[in-house]
Amino acid sequence: MHSLPDSAIRLINEFSKLPGIGRKTAQRLAFHLLSSKTENVYRLSQSLKEIKSKIKNCTICHGITENNPCKICLDSKREDDLLCVVESPYDVFVFEKINMFRGKYHVLGGSLSPLDGIGPDELNISTLIDRVNEGTEILIATNPSVEGETTALYISKILQKKNISVSKLARGVPVGSNLEYIDEATLIRAIEGRISV
Amino acid sequence: MHSLPDSAIRLINEFSKLPGIGRKTAQRLAFHLLSSKTENVYRLSQSLKEIKSKIKNCTICHGITENNPCKICLDSKREDDLLCVVESPYDVFVFEKINMFRGKYHVLGGSLSPLDGIGPDELNISTLIDRVNEGTEILIATNPSVEGETTALYISKILQKKNISVSKLARGVPVGSNLEYIDEATLIRAIEGRISV
Repeated sequence: MHSLPDSAIRLINEFSKLPGIGRKTAQRLAFHLLSSKTENVYRLSQSLKEIKSKIKNCTICHGITENNPCKICLDSKREDDLLCVVESPYDVFVFEKINMFRGKYHVLGGSLSPLDGIGPDELNISTLIDRVNEGTEILIATNPSVEGETTALYISKILQKKNISVSKLARGVPVGSNLEYIDEATLIRAIEGRISV
Repeated sequence: MHSLPDSAIRLINEFSKLPGIGRKTAQRLAFHLLSSKTENVYRLSQSLKEIKSKIKNCTICHGITENNPCKICLDSKREDDLLCVVESPYDVFVFEKINMFRGKYHVLGGSLSPLDGIGPDELNISTLIDRVNEGTEILIATNPSVEGETTALYISKILQKKNISVSKLARGVPVGSNLEYIDEATLIRAIEGRISV
């Protein structure tokens, strides 16, 4: 490693910190960029800077945006009284890809996880409660993990006290999968939630 | 995709251009960085810029360095009359990792590949010839590919005319491998180059 220039070592170290990128991949990326055109490397460097300097959180839905409020919150064609509650800004992107949901979003910024010190005050729950009224329909789309389910339960209890209609994503066998590979917990949920045909 | 801020889309596009990074991985990296601390993202951005602004090619060996000539070429403890000829600066790094080679290097900057328009003039071959004299020993360590072997043959013919001792890396079964998985070409070379015990 000492045979490499310091700046190359620093870049390899920075790349290694990214998820799914080990030491070897980081080296390969660094050497690829070393032999790339200067303008391409500067463009990557600049885009990295810009995601931090330009992107902020929307003050309404807490999603990511360059202009506050975000495009989705400002979109008058979307239903104001249908809110999809998700954990992270990435989840908004996942929903938008299917191009089917016509309501708006609310990003919690994580899920309840007492062991990691994340309680209700660390999540955007109070702003969610401020956004809803009796006519609002809430679709909770937290992850189907222990923390996600706990968060869904916590939020639904608060909202149901206010007589707000709350639903969550159906649990069942994923489309295109093979029953052979379905885990037990999913199969149990799929039976519980069976659909009459 | 249109639900994402423009700067996030630009970063995803830039990441997707890197080798081994597909669209999905690029998205995951971008979202990871979006939720990372600003200083960490700026540090990555800065390191990218620096590999282009600080690193240049050594005018002697054509390897990469921040100071010209490079540390290896300036190292008086290394043998001046033992030169390892490699294709890319990365190969120097590979050799230095084993910490056993005590000579110096010469980076060709690629291998002969007429179909891609790379002939002898596109490689650092003339500077190699300038560097050698009758006492020099040359170890050719181009890749064991068709292009690498052709390059090795081309260089060895020129140098042998000048009565310079030329060798290349042994071909054979890799240490720790299993004979079951060895390809035929490698096995043939291993038999041809068998070592008496």
